[in-house]
Amino acid sequence: MTSKETEGRGKFIVVEGLDGSGKSTHAKMIRDYIENELGEKCLLTSEPGESPIGKLLRELFKNPDANNEPLSELLLFFANRNEHLKKQIIPALDRGDWVVCERFWGSSYAYQGGGHGIKDVHIEYLIKWITSEEKPALTLFLDIPVEKALERIRKRKQTDSFESQDADFFKRVRDMYHTLAIDNHWAVIDSTRDKKAVSADIQQAINALRQT
Amino acid sequence: MTSKETEGRGKFIVVEGLDGSGKSTHAKMIRDYIENELGEKCLLTSEPGESPIGKLLRELFKNPDANNEPLSELLLFFANRNEHLKKQIIPALDRGDWVVCERFWGSSYAYQGGGHGIKDVHIEYLIKWITSEEKPALTLFLDIPVEKALERIRKRKQTDSFESQDADFFKRVRDMYHTLAIDNHWAVIDSTRDKKAVSADIQQAINALRQT
Repeated sequence: MTSKETEGRGKFIVVEGLDGSGKSTHAKMIRDYIENELGEKCLLTSEPGESPIGKLLRELFKNPDANNEPLSELLLFFANRNEHLKKQIIPALDRGDWVVCERFWGSSYAYQGGGHGIKDVHIEYLIKWITSEEKPALTLFLDIPVEKALERIRKRKQTDSFESQDADFFKRVRDMYHTLAIDNHWAVIDSTRDKKAVSADIQQAINALRQT
Repeated sequence: MTSKETEGRGKFIVVEGLDGSGKSTHAKMIRDYIENELGEKCLLTSEPGESPIGKLLRELFKNPDANNEPLSELLLFFANRNEHLKKQIIPALDRGDWVVCERFWGSSYAYQGGGHGIKDVHIEYLIKWITSEEKPALTLFLDIPVEKALERIRKRKQTDSFESQDADFFKRVRDMYHTLAIDNHWAVIDSTRDKKAVSADIQQAINALRQT
């Protein structure tokens, strides 16, 4: 990409991690940091988002007993990701705003690939086809042990079809997240610590990004 | 496929064509012919079908002003096609029933490929990945000119987001259908004639299939 193409565009930050890893809390804190400390406008968003497709997906996954084929869910998530990227994320970056997004292709790779065993080659085809137009400048992986994730999920009033999986499933998801973090140079953040310590690490990664 | 694998399995028949080409009418007549004349049990189904994903898609496309990205819609249709194939079509064929299905991968190729210009290579990747497990024994393409299709669509009370496209779009869809019909040895049926003549051609194709 030439300097002309990136000039004035915002930065795209993705927050990944297991359910219960603190993504929502920290995504909000990141947005506040970007707006209040860095003085940049920032869109806070999350998959599946609020498009007509996103809303239908939310409806579909609300049922903890939904028994969709993992392959169908993989394609649904990429359909929605395409919509989210083209209609919300890219326009915001083009306006010069920063974007903080909870979950992106890493979630499909970890959950449908690691968790459900869909082959890497297919997931990589979709990632390249659907998302290569706009690569995140920074992906933050909030890491917690599976036991901690399950403990936090169980405290919730409602669980969806993903959260109702067993410990072995989440172990495979976390293992895949670790592989992706190494292969793609994600920032791995130990999210078992108190919010302040986690937030300090995140801000350091964002500040480093700002200088690029 | 060995004879053991096909022994006792039903036949999978797909009906393709433009909106207004008579697919629903003839699909029902085919089901009746198979049950009453051939004495075989037959599942009559259509995309997007009645699975939870199918119902959500139906809801999404009901709006004639829906402005989803064609690429998102392509992925949604294959997500649903995977669900429909694995949960309904394959189990029925395994039980020995015949299956008549309105629309299958040809519709994605014609509408999202021909109509909206999504590259063949991507559509072919999805077809191979998602549907190669169960290939139709016979695809019937009910062909009508675009003007005839538009005339029939305009008489309907409600149109969906596909039916509200213009004549040039349907021209590209029909051209792609013709290419697919040649490349994949589909039975091309002139559907401008009266029902009886169309039905006689269809029954001939089905009788030939029965001897295979």
